[in-house]
Amino acid sequence: MKLYYSPLACSLADHIALLEAGVPFEREAVDLKTKRTASGADFVAITRKGYVPVLVLDGGEILTENIAVLDWIASQYPALRVDGPLGRTRTLEALTYISTEIHRAFKPMWHQSTEDERAKASHSITKLLDLFAAHLAGDYLFGDTPGVADFYLFVMFLWARRFRVSVPKPLETLRIRLATRPAVRGAMEHEGLFQSLRDASQPDAG
Amino acid sequence: MKLYYSPLACSLADHIALLEAGVPFEREAVDLKTKRTASGADFVAITRKGYVPVLVLDGGEILTENIAVLDWIASQYPALRVDGPLGRTRTLEALTYISTEIHRAFKPMWHQSTEDERAKASHSITKLLDLFAAHLAGDYLFGDTPGVADFYLFVMFLWARRFRVSVPKPLETLRIRLATRPAVRGAMEHEGLFQSLRDASQPDAG
Repeated sequence: MKLYYSPLACSLADHIALLEAGVPFEREAVDLKTKRTASGADFVAITRKGYVPVLVLDGGEILTENIAVLDWIASQYPALRVDGPLGRTRTLEALTYISTEIHRAFKPMWHQSTEDERAKASHSITKLLDLFAAHLAGDYLFGDTPGVADFYLFVMFLWARRFRVSVPKPLETLRIRLATRPAVRGAMEHEGLFQSLRDASQPDAG
Repeated sequence: MKLYYSPLACSLADHIALLEAGVPFEREAVDLKTKRTASGADFVAITRKGYVPVLVLDGGEILTENIAVLDWIASQYPALRVDGPLGRTRTLEALTYISTEIHRAFKPMWHQSTEDERAKASHSITKLLDLFAAHLAGDYLFGDTPGVADFYLFVMFLWARRFRVSVPKPLETLRIRLATRPAVRGAMEHEGLFQSLRDASQPDAG
């Protein structure tokens, strides 16, 4: 199994999930601007979509789309599954909200935009995150162990930190809790995100 | 089971899927501007997200997010499932691509935007649709019977038709094929989409 990722992209969630699952896998970084992998391969020949994550299974099947890849990982490794008859659906519901509402709301932060657009986006993101602040089922989103939705949400926390977007208090606690997990540290160190990791472990400045 | 929908919104895919499944369900339209349901209920009290689809299960559980709701419907009704060990993942991959790439690309069409922004969006949508044109596994996306990804894609075809976005030829054939299905006709007639239904059944003009 091999994960193609780009540092600090949403593929970090898959990277963390595979380490949490404790399964052996290869990993290779992709330069999303040049569409070249770290070893020089043409990434568009691997997926014409040209974006991460991509997970190549042992049988050679190529999986794309973060929601689908995270759902696949969770379905394979019991430690990452959410219990109950609606566990998979509740996870998908959270993953979809993170992807189509929160992740997307960061667009003005990553691309050219006005100060006003950024301020509006920042306000929206805080409001969107609020939905989760009221719904922690324990230490994590769905109970006392983290699942793939926590890892995707954690990437949003890192982006929020980077762009000084305010995060509701219960989620700040969740961010710090996640940042201490060996799988999270391992993935971030491998991606070279040392400063982000230090930041994620600290409370927000007053 | 009860579906909350808004005419021509992406909830039409769920509406079609439930009719294809042949399962009894209630349905109620929502005015997304006033956040009132057809019977006058406060939609925000049903889901603070305030958008469709919402599927209320017989046990009272409330499901939101189109990808999660469509995946749940497909998981319950064998006729809608895609075969093979990766069937559910391949469906999710297609649903996610439709939602996060194609559906999103229509934003300038539905909201205030310049002629230039609309032209760019139209060009992008045609390119994004092209991925599916090369991947039909039979009469439909994944074989000889349609699944939930076909229904979501069909909604994108209706939007393309409405905003005169060009659709690759194999997908035009798929649109016409879908438009003749009783479940599609039933859902569209119930939503009052008579003109869209007539349009969807015809080839694109030159």
